[in-house]
Amino acid sequence: MFTPATADQRFVLDHVVGIADLAATERFAAASDDVVDAVLEGVGQLAAGEWAPLLRTGDTVGAKWTPDGVVMPEGFVKAYHDYVEGGWGTIGVPEEFGGQGLPFAIQTAVLDTLGSANMGFALAPTLTVGAIEALAHHGSPAQQAQYLPHLATGEWTGTMNLTEPQAGSDVGALRTQAKPLGDGKWSIKGTKIYISFGDHDMAPNIVHLVLARTPGAPAGTKGISLFLVPKYRLNADGTPGAFNDVRVVSIEHKMGLHASPTCVLSFGDNDDCIGELIGGEFGGIRAMFTMMNNARLNVGLQGVQVAEAATQAAVGYALDRVQSPRAGSGNAEPVKIVEHPDVRRMLLRMKAQTQAARALVYYAASQVDRATLGQAGGQERLDILTPLAKAHGTDIGNEVASLGIQVHGGMGYIEETGAAQFFRDARITPIYEGTNGIQAADLVGRKLGLDNGGVFARLIADMRAEAEDVALRTLIDTCDEIGRGMAGLSADDKLAASYPFLTMLSVAVCGWLMERSGRIAATAEGDRAYLSMKVAAARFYVAQIVPEALGLKAAAMAKADVLYSVTAEAFAA
Amino acid sequence: MFTPATADQRFVLDHVVGIADLAATERFAAASDDVVDAVLEGVGQLAAGEWAPLLRTGDTVGAKWTPDGVVMPEGFVKAYHDYVEGGWGTIGVPEEFGGQGLPFAIQTAVLDTLGSANMGFALAPTLTVGAIEALAHHGSPAQQAQYLPHLATGEWTGTMNLTEPQAGSDVGALRTQAKPLGDGKWSIKGTKIYISFGDHDMAPNIVHLVLARTPGAPAGTKGISLFLVPKYRLNADGTPGAFNDVRVVSIEHKMGLHASPTCVLSFGDNDDCIGELIGGEFGGIRAMFTMMNNARLNVGLQGVQVAEAATQAAVGYALDRVQSPRAGSGNAEPVKIVEHPDVRRMLLRMKAQTQAARALVYYAASQVDRATLGQAGGQERLDILTPLAKAHGTDIGNEVASLGIQVHGGMGYIEETGAAQFFRDARITPIYEGTNGIQAADLVGRKLGLDNGGVFARLIADMRAEAEDVALRTLIDTCDEIGRGMAGLSADDKLAASYPFLTMLSVAVCGWLMERSGRIAATAEGDRAYLSMKVAAARFYVAQIVPEALGLKAAAMAKADVLYSVTAEAFAA
Repeated sequence: MFTPATADQRFVLDHVVGIADLAATERFAAASDDVVDAVLEGVGQLAAGEWAPLLRTGDTVGAKWTPDGVVMPEGFVKAYHDYVEGGWGTIGVPEEFGGQGLPFAIQTAVLDTLGSANMGFALAPTLTVGAIEALAHHGSPAQQAQYLPHLATGEWTGTMNLTEPQAGSDVGALRTQAKPLGDGKWSIKGTKIYISFGDHDMAPNIVHLVLARTPGAPAGTKGISLFLVPKYRLNADGTPGAFNDVRVVSIEHKMGLHASPTCVLSFGDNDDCIGELIGGEFGGIRAMFTMMNNARLNVGLQGVQVAEAATQAAVGYALDRVQSPRAGSGNAEPVKIVEHPDVRRMLLRMKAQTQAARALVYYAASQVDRATLGQAGGQERLDILTPLAKAHGTDIGNEVASLGIQVHGGMGYIEETGAAQFFRDARITPIYEGTNGIQAADLVGRKLGLDNGGVFARLIADMRAEAEDVALRTLIDTCDEIGRGMAGLSADDKLAASYPFLTMLSVAVCGWLMERSGRIAATAEGDRAYLSMKVAAARFYVAQIVPEALGLKAAAMAKADVLYSVTAEAFAA
Repeated sequence: MFTPATADQRFVLDHVVGIADLAATERFAAASDDVVDAVLEGVGQLAAGEWAPLLRTGDTVGAKWTPDGVVMPEGFVKAYHDYVEGGWGTIGVPEEFGGQGLPFAIQTAVLDTLGSANMGFALAPTLTVGAIEALAHHGSPAQQAQYLPHLATGEWTGTMNLTEPQAGSDVGALRTQAKPLGDGKWSIKGTKIYISFGDHDMAPNIVHLVLARTPGAPAGTKGISLFLVPKYRLNADGTPGAFNDVRVVSIEHKMGLHASPTCVLSFGDNDDCIGELIGGEFGGIRAMFTMMNNARLNVGLQGVQVAEAATQAAVGYALDRVQSPRAGSGNAEPVKIVEHPDVRRMLLRMKAQTQAARALVYYAASQVDRATLGQAGGQERLDILTPLAKAHGTDIGNEVASLGIQVHGGMGYIEETGAAQFFRDARITPIYEGTNGIQAADLVGRKLGLDNGGVFARLIADMRAEAEDVALRTLIDTCDEIGRGMAGLSADDKLAASYPFLTMLSVAVCGWLMERSGRIAATAEGDRAYLSMKVAAARFYVAQIVPEALGLKAAAMAKADVLYSVTAEAFAA
């Protein structure tokens, strides 16, 4: 049974996000204590009451392709409509576009809860958020007026159309064409793959944001433009009208995340697909990054979601399953398996990692708000945290889902138990929205060098100013040393060390936030069970997970030469 | 396309197993160079030609339950018969029981190849090996004469029946009953779960080895006896005759390993199930460990199998898939992804881990042979290596299968690609045959203390005498220090630290064997591509994976207090 992680969300909002500081601003004045509590509780009810019960159907039945489009499993249409009716889509949307204007960090908490209940389902609102961001930042006033109110409520959903068969992570290689029609509109033609919720039956319209090339556009990412392509063109009164020649060719047969239809979309098969330019011609990459950066945080958040869900399931099992006496206890009666030290170690690790991922992702989300407010350091902190939140958040989701199976023992491998679904669902998250390897490349190739290393240096300084534990301080120092050294390395050497370095830096940030959280929880008033667990999770994190990350030092300082000491073909030998 | 890992198998047999030393004994004189090469090549042909092509059918169609028993997917019956016809089942069986009398290490290589081609399928022969071991060591001459020749060829298959619904890892809690019939036979009644290949249509008989309680037996493991329960009773001429009231109730709907039917077996529904005692009454646990210890090595070997298969698939993809220019190369043309540093890091890690797991498991397997020969130190080294081989071998299988998905990017998440199957198949291996947590408990609770720590000390001494790298020597010293310290700890403290300690010690053993292998490969004559990869894999292992294991020191020295600083119920807070 799913229970919203309200206590930890509130704790992280208070002590990591600094929600009170945000609420003290005019822009986010709506985020009062009462409102935040009401939001967390309200979405928790929807998630536990309506979304969580559909988790298994989403997996076993899944979204289905039909010649008339994708059909969601029974119950999803209603549960989605109740999400729309409840106003949950509008949380983070600025009031000028029909939203509630609450901080992105609160929207993050809302999506956290929905996705913990049903991660695949929550991808629909998550992608809509990306479309809203792109339109809010780059759309014309007319486009914003026509589309944003419907996207803000979630009445219409949004998609991101980047990938093509020949161009996976290499967006610049895309071939979808946009030809001017002379009236300011464009004719779109091409095929896109891996389009999550590219089609479904929960909304009367779907707003596709499509990267394409205009005639004579320069090669590579420089020549890419972003187009708004609705599934149904708008009538004069703004309601969905004629079909816009966007066909769902098929959906992928994936290992998990079956509630989320991953579509192959064909635009303009009948040369009758019309799009509008968003932002200027060749402004596609910039607009894409607007969508994608926040989408990356939201994928990192999926790591939190699946970790939370897997942990709850494992804890529930361990509190119920009775097996074997506890060794060394002198008592021959079998006990609940939560009492066995190694099971407890796994559970505490799951709790600690889940909380750490939540702290990391929410902390990054809070920088979106600081950037919105124009606060000093907000945007730059967001820039450097985004690859960490995406990659390490999803790595944690996968590790915790795997531990969840292990806690269940043989039952974990049986599909009916549900632990396996989390493991299968989680595995896409280190891949999409830029593989975690690409996040690591972004960190060492772009983010470390921002402001001549100043952005990185200020993050290190903030951590160093607060961290107390010796191993944590050593980790921060080691990250500092390695990070500064990266500037002098070749591209190959940087990239060869990028992934272990990303992990070290992520753990340093998590360790910093977890140590602080443990310190606060130790003397805080409130729910003793929750607070004692926060203290234990923080202790475990700093004492065990931080030193593990120090073990990555050699890898994070290794050069590329060993990788290229063999020919490519020798890998097949 | 699957290619048998013959070069690495031969290398490990030569330089880790010491096959020449074994072949120099009378018992294993048959293991000449020519014979070993012929075995590796021959089974490679069967595996690549007949077993690998069934990998995907095994997953997508899978074994099916019918009222008349379990039916294997098309092609399996023939492929299994060709395995029997080729004599592959007889490799490791002593000549006196109709086998070829080759070393267990060679049988390990044979199963390695078959399981790399089709891991789920290879579980059928793997379990038969367990049944052979139990009968060879504990069966009466009559039982051996009646059953062993048929099991040795694989004409009949074997199963292990331990688990019951209320008794998972706690074997002592089982309830299946055996009542004496007065003629030396026993009436068996009870339900067993998780019985791999508990039923199928590839063999005319199935020999179930069943743990049960006799009337008035003491509680717990002390009161358990082992029974031989054929699916069909033998006629006077030894051929399968009347049905023995062993009914397959259902098969599990598992996340993976669909080629292997995981059965719920009901014995004696009609009070007409007859079994024979194997070994003496109450000798069940001893006999079970005979089966199980070698089965544990063979499950560790499944880690090698799935790692090998996943690595081959990922390498194949990375050598084929062209995407993005290589950063810093000055060349704007897209390259094969194997050329990108982080992809290469993943691939080299996969190679290094796969080779390390193979070295560890084959090294353990060679101790079975040394024990068979009565060589000093064989049995004790086997005892301490078994939990490492099982747990760390399977941990590596899972890590490598996950990396395999990552190398494939989005394609890795699509089932048709095949990478996902390895990931799903692998996940059971850290669970069955004693969860990896139980292996860790076995290591710290029983194995470290053998001969007052002498068994552990001699392993440490052997590693220390040969290891050269500073980090590796530090790891060995650290393991020594922690391992010796375990004796003074409480059961809780030992167990709390057991898993990280098991990983550290396993990596130390792997590092020792890999470093040696790299040293030898650097000056060896032969296939340059293979040898250069061995050198690179060894370098990577010692330089990067060994230091990672050092990062586990804090966890391996941590006490249980943090785990019990919270109530069990607080985990649900």
